[in-house]
Amino acid sequence: MERFMNKRIGIIGLGNVGEGVVRSIDRYKSLISRRTSLNIEIKAVCDARPQKGVLAKEFSIPFTTDAKQILTDPEIDIIVELIGGIEPAKSFICAAFKNGKDVVTANKALLADSGKEIFSLAGKYGRAVGFEASVCGAIPLIKSISEGLVSCEVKKFYGILNGTTNYILCKMEKEKWDFSRALKDAQKKGFAEADPTTDIEGKDTLNKLCVLTYLCFGVWPDPSKILTEGISRISLQDIMYAQQMNCRIKLLAVAKREKDQLDLRVHPAIIPQEHPLAETSDAYNAVSIDTDPAGEMLFYGLGAGGVPTSSAVISDIVDIGLHDKGIARAQEKIVFKNIKETRSRYYIRFMAKDKPGALAMVAKILGSLDISIASVTQKEKANRASVPIIMITHEAKESNIKRALEKIDCLPSMASPSQMIRIESI
Amino acid sequence: MERFMNKRIGIIGLGNVGEGVVRSIDRYKSLISRRTSLNIEIKAVCDARPQKGVLAKEFSIPFTTDAKQILTDPEIDIIVELIGGIEPAKSFICAAFKNGKDVVTANKALLADSGKEIFSLAGKYGRAVGFEASVCGAIPLIKSISEGLVSCEVKKFYGILNGTTNYILCKMEKEKWDFSRALKDAQKKGFAEADPTTDIEGKDTLNKLCVLTYLCFGVWPDPSKILTEGISRISLQDIMYAQQMNCRIKLLAVAKREKDQLDLRVHPAIIPQEHPLAETSDAYNAVSIDTDPAGEMLFYGLGAGGVPTSSAVISDIVDIGLHDKGIARAQEKIVFKNIKETRSRYYIRFMAKDKPGALAMVAKILGSLDISIASVTQKEKANRASVPIIMITHEAKESNIKRALEKIDCLPSMASPSQMIRIESI
Repeated sequence: MERFMNKRIGIIGLGNVGEGVVRSIDRYKSLISRRTSLNIEIKAVCDARPQKGVLAKEFSIPFTTDAKQILTDPEIDIIVELIGGIEPAKSFICAAFKNGKDVVTANKALLADSGKEIFSLAGKYGRAVGFEASVCGAIPLIKSISEGLVSCEVKKFYGILNGTTNYILCKMEKEKWDFSRALKDAQKKGFAEADPTTDIEGKDTLNKLCVLTYLCFGVWPDPSKILTEGISRISLQDIMYAQQMNCRIKLLAVAKREKDQLDLRVHPAIIPQEHPLAETSDAYNAVSIDTDPAGEMLFYGLGAGGVPTSSAVISDIVDIGLHDKGIARAQEKIVFKNIKETRSRYYIRFMAKDKPGALAMVAKILGSLDISIASVTQKEKANRASVPIIMITHEAKESNIKRALEKIDCLPSMASPSQMIRIESI
Repeated sequence: MERFMNKRIGIIGLGNVGEGVVRSIDRYKSLISRRTSLNIEIKAVCDARPQKGVLAKEFSIPFTTDAKQILTDPEIDIIVELIGGIEPAKSFICAAFKNGKDVVTANKALLADSGKEIFSLAGKYGRAVGFEASVCGAIPLIKSISEGLVSCEVKKFYGILNGTTNYILCKMEKEKWDFSRALKDAQKKGFAEADPTTDIEGKDTLNKLCVLTYLCFGVWPDPSKILTEGISRISLQDIMYAQQMNCRIKLLAVAKREKDQLDLRVHPAIIPQEHPLAETSDAYNAVSIDTDPAGEMLFYGLGAGGVPTSSAVISDIVDIGLHDKGIARAQEKIVFKNIKETRSRYYIRFMAKDKPGALAMVAKILGSLDISIASVTQKEKANRASVPIIMITHEAKESNIKRALEKIDCLPSMASPSQMIRIESI
């Protein structure tokens, strides 16, 4: 009695995720059609690198190095774009819409850069866009927020969205390694790329924050205006001090709605050890989201890896295959909060030359900028030349902290620039 | 350019969740139609208790005490069944299908009892069933598994599916209360019902295990054949000893696939403190699920409460409203494993009269049944008459443990029956 439907897809990009999708569709094809009455057929695959033809051959799928062949193939219903980066991915996706094809993509960099344009073009041509794989890899987060929480207003979310940086921070804490040693280990184990800048400096987390912001609040932010700090400046010392506070340092994507203002940022943050987010280990991702009326929830799982992520790509293919359904959010009116206006508690570490008076000077500057100190600890001497002083402030204004640190760093009693990490009381 | 669709619903049952749905639809109606182009209209509400008419009046919705009026109303598209229990809920749902209406339900007891029959009838009449609210309240777990993980094979899952028992276990640990004091506190705070048996003895968890088993493995198990143990026999002593092992005791729903055998059970289990499941606090629910190819993931959120759960009910209404789409699983072939055949590590606490030789007798019995001991600790004297001996076994067969404990409990050197808690190395 079942009606079976056929959907023919073309895959552009045979990197880790592309290969994972080819292998998973081959392996789980019959499971999927048993569960959904949908037959997925890979009509053709494309990669600019001719050597990727080997994979296609293994599964007897037509291979081309010319994306145009796939984009214009009248027998293909859905284009799966897995090459990443802005161009030529953007041109390919736009061509797909114009040729009447739906699109599934894992491309957070492109969505963060041109999401508004892409969704508007998809709307114009009546096409669907699936992007489950763009954030948090295997976790069905996009679906959960867009459909499961369809009647919910998001108040705030915190995300650990990048496995590379989380792996490095975990290793530093567990093995007592400094940043560069943990980075080398991550590169050796395949968790970090040869050029790790996009991950390490928070750009990848920023891209994913933009996608989640669209989903949760119906607006595409301008990524260049969002405060983005990476983890390269985090020292083992800071991680140990955080531990002494029963806290952990995590690279967070933060989004908080305050009436019609939206506070967005990416930076390392000190969070309490007992919060479930703090338990996010190694290359896992997690998002904690607070909503009305569904309350707080947390999603946790593998954030990357070609084979795990293939499950997210396939769930998009199935959704579009069965219901011609993509995810698009109505544009909401919202204003982005200037980072200078945000308030937080701060962890500040000064490296003072062991000189009486340094602390008094620091306290004076902070006081003059309306920053009140919650605790001060003078730690053991780090080396011959300087002694670390750890200050925890009460809630203070970001712009005041920045001005205070500029002044403090000019004091002759300081041995090296100060360190500042925001404390999130999530 | 948007086409707006209208869906008219009738709600039967105005308890906590029913009232939450009425309030949330009123509050988030315009948000939902902005996001999905769907207008949800509550055409009528029904409750056998006439005093519930007050709520209907507050929102100017027609009210009846006679479900038949709603079930036969030709203007109603979707019946939302929120009365719970087997009858009359079952008859109402069957009548809805026959009258050409789709159904949304939160009724885990009914699904566990008659799920197979209900889905088969829905299939016969071509109707959709939504049941997101039946497990884990506000967490979009049903959707995540059925759609997000549509291409995944579930290898195993562990769930903390009942907020009442989790609240009690958390309170016992945090406040050092015994079970009955923690239960009274839960009743006072509204986390436990006046008659708490269904929650405390694991029946509610069992019902939810059945629903998740259908979803993950495509089979409806017979609930009467699944080992179900509650938490009333858990003493503060056991919780403290578990803590000393860096573990926690949680009431777990366990499902593990071993080739074509399925191992299903509900019982208190000792799990490592650092596992994210162990961090599930108070009335929260959490499910940890291990899949191919998406790997391990965890979902965490509010498991109950009328207002939070309303978000799950509404997401089902939207899905059916937009896509005439319910969740049904193809029947898979699978055999249920006999609990006697399962293997586990065990925590066993004996209360021995302080008599030399008791330990030797116990060790002899265990040895004769092929149970090998990993550690033994004799704790401080609990009272004048007996001394607790804590044994941790290596992996052993359930049937052997049961036989050993029967024999040991007959020993004259035992002051009271032994305690056994399974250790899950999740």
